[in-house]
Amino acid sequence: MSGHEEETLALLKLSMCEGVSSKTIFALVEHFGSARAALEAGLGELEQVNGITAAAATSARRGPGEGAVARELDLMERHRVRLVPFSSEDYPPPLKYLEGAAPALLRVRGDYKREDQLAVAVVGARRCSTYGRQQAARFASDLASMGFTIVSGMAYGIDEAAHRGALMAKGRTLAVLGCGLAANMQPEDRQRALDIAENGAVMSELPMDVPPRPGNFPPRNRLISGLSLGVVVIEAAKRSGSLITARLAGEQGKAVFAVPGSVDSPTSQGCHALIRDGAILVENARDVVEGLGPLSEPIELPSTQDGAVVAAAVDDARVLGLSERERRILDLLGASPLHIDEVVGETQLPPSIVSSTLLTLEIRGFIQQLAGQRYVRR
Amino acid sequence: MSGHEEETLALLKLSMCEGVSSKTIFALVEHFGSARAALEAGLGELEQVNGITAAAATSARRGPGEGAVARELDLMERHRVRLVPFSSEDYPPPLKYLEGAAPALLRVRGDYKREDQLAVAVVGARRCSTYGRQQAARFASDLASMGFTIVSGMAYGIDEAAHRGALMAKGRTLAVLGCGLAANMQPEDRQRALDIAENGAVMSELPMDVPPRPGNFPPRNRLISGLSLGVVVIEAAKRSGSLITARLAGEQGKAVFAVPGSVDSPTSQGCHALIRDGAILVENARDVVEGLGPLSEPIELPSTQDGAVVAAAVDDARVLGLSERERRILDLLGASPLHIDEVVGETQLPPSIVSSTLLTLEIRGFIQQLAGQRYVRR
Repeated sequence: MSGHEEETLALLKLSMCEGVSSKTIFALVEHFGSARAALEAGLGELEQVNGITAAAATSARRGPGEGAVARELDLMERHRVRLVPFSSEDYPPPLKYLEGAAPALLRVRGDYKREDQLAVAVVGARRCSTYGRQQAARFASDLASMGFTIVSGMAYGIDEAAHRGALMAKGRTLAVLGCGLAANMQPEDRQRALDIAENGAVMSELPMDVPPRPGNFPPRNRLISGLSLGVVVIEAAKRSGSLITARLAGEQGKAVFAVPGSVDSPTSQGCHALIRDGAILVENARDVVEGLGPLSEPIELPSTQDGAVVAAAVDDARVLGLSERERRILDLLGASPLHIDEVVGETQLPPSIVSSTLLTLEIRGFIQQLAGQRYVRR
Repeated sequence: MSGHEEETLALLKLSMCEGVSSKTIFALVEHFGSARAALEAGLGELEQVNGITAAAATSARRGPGEGAVARELDLMERHRVRLVPFSSEDYPPPLKYLEGAAPALLRVRGDYKREDQLAVAVVGARRCSTYGRQQAARFASDLASMGFTIVSGMAYGIDEAAHRGALMAKGRTLAVLGCGLAANMQPEDRQRALDIAENGAVMSELPMDVPPRPGNFPPRNRLISGLSLGVVVIEAAKRSGSLITARLAGEQGKAVFAVPGSVDSPTSQGCHALIRDGAILVENARDVVEGLGPLSEPIELPSTQDGAVVAAAVDDARVLGLSERERRILDLLGASPLHIDEVVGETQLPPSIVSSTLLTLEIRGFIQQLAGQRYVRR
């Protein structure tokens, strides 16, 4: 086992200690220099760690037990799940910008690819109407056709229709679960998870066999919005998990979209409340692309169909007019590499915005990313 | 014939001169001191009037012809239509605040009552869906039950359903036509006009037999919004008359509301566009009342049904908490009468807002209106 693998195993063990959150893991690694060192530390030393609770210190001292770790590794192997720590090249870059709330370790089945940064979440109620299911599939399918990866939660109802829509359009899709990747599932869910993993990834920050518990969903929802440039809420009752996702997305500075429906449909009330609170009303995928703004700004090409115009907005880098923000960042870059943090420092823009704008500029072919998050102009 | 009646007849004649608008009539009356004097003026004198076109001067000089006037008076009598000039006590006060765009003379069948100042317009597409018709009837009926007068345009579709909803709730309703009150109508329209006149009024600024022409509708729409505290657009296609009404309402400082619908319904697209442009999304009459804000602010009463709470907001003056704006105006008033213009001067608020707020305070029993638009505290 390489030092790298040993450290990942140590992170896995810490993540399996009751009461040890990702935040605590980051604090432990910062204090002791590595997860391995943290696992070997004494209780007195652990209790010195900034912000750690006595219970978490005790739990980390005790460790998860060898049997549990062996079982976790076995489940991972059987379900073809990999561990992706924060430091890994495979770790989704957008999650790094969840300040203080990034997962220390992800369990991933399938692959997160660089292009998955151009992602939109499509979420909504489990108990939804036929209208909701149709719209979820339509939005997901249309956005996937334009090159967006569709992020959702693999729940029944809207989530399921969103993943299905993306797959039908032969696009990519990411599912973030509120349970472990080996939690008890219905056969059709297993098949869906397989399909998603083959065309994207299924991921969770929870140990493999953790069942879905209500408390798991708000933390899961922050990852759904964290992975996405914007969140489209298709249908949601008042006071629902989807509204939490939308709120978190707003707090993360992501665009929040909501699809209206009949005023006599209870499952549209949450969306209407979101719109009243400032979410962007969207009727179709094009509205979403427009609402994302500078990241994927559509341009008007004469005599093409709507779909072609929008597809061009994403695909054809050369003809695109740049937004003011994109020009500002592009102007900073030249032949000598600039680190992303320098771009953040110069522009004073939020890191997540800088990151997405750099990605867009790269996808459009204006700039190139070098190793270590450094960028040059092409 | 009294001097008053003679002046009204002169106004009628001016209003029947081709190309002589209300704006021109106001300019003529200001210049010559009365409509009668304007009708007797020579062409040279008429051409001196501020802003008058040569064509309008010639037309006013020629007059409408005695035959046409006799016919108009006959039609008015047969249709039981009264002339209501700007100076009349029966002239709807909210229309006085349409600066530069108030009608000089209205033809009215039925009665405009003081309580009709608490009015909401419910408008929308002629070609509408069943959903739209249902919502129009529901909003109108619920708002009428709360004491609001429903204003609409007596067109097919949404307008018709709005008037019907108000009448079903035994409420009051006003119809403003884009044609003369004796224009050719289908028998069912005639009956509807009768029903509306019995429970409100049907009005037009056009001569009795003017047919509905496209150019009549934008001016008509300004009266619909002008009569109302807010405009609810139920269903509207993109680029439609209802959107013009909504825009005019916004320019007049009135609240604009729109009802969302399915994104796959073309007749909801106009409403969705309005919401994106800042109109308030409403699901029910209560949302409208809340959106009107200080004019009819609902208060939360414990353990009553929604309907009762909202009805209380309009009816029960004593228990209402006042908005900041209402308190500000109430604080100005005391035992010695204050003219509305003084209230406008002191508060620097738009006259239409001051007028509606004074009305609300009066309806709530806090103040009393004396002759000549002067107010005292009760």
